[in-house]
Amino acid sequence: MNDNIKRKSFIDVSKDSDFPIENLPYGIFYTKENNSLRVGTAIGEYVLDLAAADRNGLFKNISPADKEIFSSKSLNRFMSMGKTFHREIRKEISDLLDENNSILRDDDKLRSECLIHQNDVTMCMPVEIGDYTDFYSSKDHATNVGIMFRGKENALMPNWLHLPVAYHGRASSVVISGTEIIRPKGQTKADDAESPSFGPSRLLDFELEMGFFIGTGNNLGEPINIDNASDHIFGMVLVNDWSARDIQKWEYVPLGPFLAKNFATSISPWVVTMEALEPFRIKSEIQDPAPLPYLKSSGNNSYDIKLDVLLKTPSSQNAEIISRSNFKYMYWDMYQQLAHHTVTGCNMRTGDLLASGTISGPEKGTYGSLLELSWRGEEPIKLTSGGELKFLRDGDELIIKGYCEKDGLRIGFGEVTGKILPAK
Amino acid sequence: MNDNIKRKSFIDVSKDSDFPIENLPYGIFYTKENNSLRVGTAIGEYVLDLAAADRNGLFKNISPADKEIFSSKSLNRFMSMGKTFHREIRKEISDLLDENNSILRDDDKLRSECLIHQNDVTMCMPVEIGDYTDFYSSKDHATNVGIMFRGKENALMPNWLHLPVAYHGRASSVVISGTEIIRPKGQTKADDAESPSFGPSRLLDFELEMGFFIGTGNNLGEPINIDNASDHIFGMVLVNDWSARDIQKWEYVPLGPFLAKNFATSISPWVVTMEALEPFRIKSEIQDPAPLPYLKSSGNNSYDIKLDVLLKTPSSQNAEIISRSNFKYMYWDMYQQLAHHTVTGCNMRTGDLLASGTISGPEKGTYGSLLELSWRGEEPIKLTSGGELKFLRDGDELIIKGYCEKDGLRIGFGEVTGKILPAK
Repeated sequence: MNDNIKRKSFIDVSKDSDFPIENLPYGIFYTKENNSLRVGTAIGEYVLDLAAADRNGLFKNISPADKEIFSSKSLNRFMSMGKTFHREIRKEISDLLDENNSILRDDDKLRSECLIHQNDVTMCMPVEIGDYTDFYSSKDHATNVGIMFRGKENALMPNWLHLPVAYHGRASSVVISGTEIIRPKGQTKADDAESPSFGPSRLLDFELEMGFFIGTGNNLGEPINIDNASDHIFGMVLVNDWSARDIQKWEYVPLGPFLAKNFATSISPWVVTMEALEPFRIKSEIQDPAPLPYLKSSGNNSYDIKLDVLLKTPSSQNAEIISRSNFKYMYWDMYQQLAHHTVTGCNMRTGDLLASGTISGPEKGTYGSLLELSWRGEEPIKLTSGGELKFLRDGDELIIKGYCEKDGLRIGFGEVTGKILPAK
Repeated sequence: MNDNIKRKSFIDVSKDSDFPIENLPYGIFYTKENNSLRVGTAIGEYVLDLAAADRNGLFKNISPADKEIFSSKSLNRFMSMGKTFHREIRKEISDLLDENNSILRDDDKLRSECLIHQNDVTMCMPVEIGDYTDFYSSKDHATNVGIMFRGKENALMPNWLHLPVAYHGRASSVVISGTEIIRPKGQTKADDAESPSFGPSRLLDFELEMGFFIGTGNNLGEPINIDNASDHIFGMVLVNDWSARDIQKWEYVPLGPFLAKNFATSISPWVVTMEALEPFRIKSEIQDPAPLPYLKSSGNNSYDIKLDVLLKTPSSQNAEIISRSNFKYMYWDMYQQLAHHTVTGCNMRTGDLLASGTISGPEKGTYGSLLELSWRGEEPIKLTSGGELKFLRDGDELIIKGYCEKDGLRIGFGEVTGKILPAK
């Protein structure tokens, strides 16, 4: 699986780039010169236009019947084609970009057609999402929220350690990084108010999450066994599940979050494949009590992915870090999530998004939401740029970055950003 | 709007047919002779093949650019074209089937090409559903469930009378009537058990619901005002939201139902338009407390739609009625649901399905689930075919029928059926 490690590209890739030749994430983009949506991969500061590469006959493994997989407005068709095909294409792209391969390297015309600087592309939604599911799989997050709402003794619900709790999210409002977020209006009720009132949310929050996309799905009535779960997962993105805490608090009983979450969920544009993340697999947390057999996974099923949350206020020059977390803090792993989701027979389709839920670590500086970082607003964050932060203000920009690092290899996700606009 | 009332078709339509010329619902079908999916409308015992009718030049209002709207595997393209277009096409179809119009009536070749007996067609999913939302808008249902789970004093949650509570459902597992339902396996926990166990659901239930489809959507960040809500609603279907009560009970805190509902939701094949339902509008229930201004709707915003629930057991010759309910028992109307759903800026897309939630009336014989009809299994239903019913058994077939009747006019939905297969 790690045959690409220590390769080098003829494209210059700086040490702190998220996109060395070992990454090769997939995304959808267009340019000013050619506004057709198409598939690309990131390499250093460049995008390799895979539609152009294919048009120029650079792929041997793509049959004539599949000619359109890269001239497509989403990755779905490509994602549906299975792991063997994905590995072949990954190898071909890697070979094409290798420093020792002259085909693209030494052909100026081909290079100018296939390689575009990232500054000159506009990234779009990479995937047509059928269904979006949001889990609740960080124990520290669930505990923190539980303490705030129900006290320390009843922090975790009785089911939490036995199954990966989740809810269905809204697919229509999943948006690409950079989309501005309009502060939602909605119904809220103060604890001491007689009746609810209507207006802009005053407790607007982010949620630090990651999500994975389904490559090949399953038929209705045919659960995915946990041992085969990895065959169905195409890759991962950063997710910010924007949340209006005051709307959530009033609406969520007894059927769960609804409007508090469905006004926007942002994702990063580059889908990093599981093949690229392979070197960063680590042991999952030991689960006690042991899960039921259908949820038993063995091996290194967690991933060491560093996650930074940054805030940029309208008055500050630079974004400042407000949390440093890690995907490894998840209690339930992706394979458990997928096995659980389908155990009743629920069918997955290519492009379905399954998100982790808010990722919080054990200490305050690793929490994945302002609800936790400012402890319901009772302990505001002191910003180095001045002032205090409880919840998101109009004009605030929230940035999440994610990357893996080990033995000089860095595989990154880029970032997911969003700026808060005033309510309409 | 009611210009079609009292018309008569040259196709013989019996008095108890759901599909007189005043109905004209839309569906997707294929035949043994032609397995291309296409759009049809039901008239008496026949289907009018709208693709064939269009191919033969029978529609004046369809521009060459829109030629494929009826040669389509879903209604989505047609649904997106707006109310004015829908009214024009409805008038053209109605004229075409009118007893005084000879064009189709007297042309045997045209008739044999365009009119197919319903016995000779297979109905398919009518709509590609983007997102599926399930409301909880029957006060009697919410009260019944509340009494069972929390006692009489706390039956309705504090928010229930102030907003139409809802949750996001699973779109991938919405299936067409007639699809067999495999009893789901999952995690459950008996009250007196130390830890959960895994196995087939023992409390499998139906939920009597109706749903409406979005015709034209809204942009993210631009709520649909309640006064314009009807412009966005294309039509309605019968919905059975199959539920595994034992799985639900264990999993649903704090984020709501998940696996207990996502193994299957069945819908009826014919989408009955709001134009056809217009004569059956009635006053909504008076709401106390008065809802906030964004939820205030006036006029006749409820619909008098009779709903029968029937059960057929493997040993019985005929299906027997186990509940007689009515869509008018809904506390929150469709316009309020749509205004609420989008008030935070959530975007609707053509084909989104918004379901009512279980529809229960005030008396036992009008309840919309076995959970209520058998009161958690404590008061089993005595079947006339013999035996008692608490929850659904393997081999049971559940049938929901829906129809409006008034002044000799009957507008029906046909039925939504599903038979329970044993767990795998």
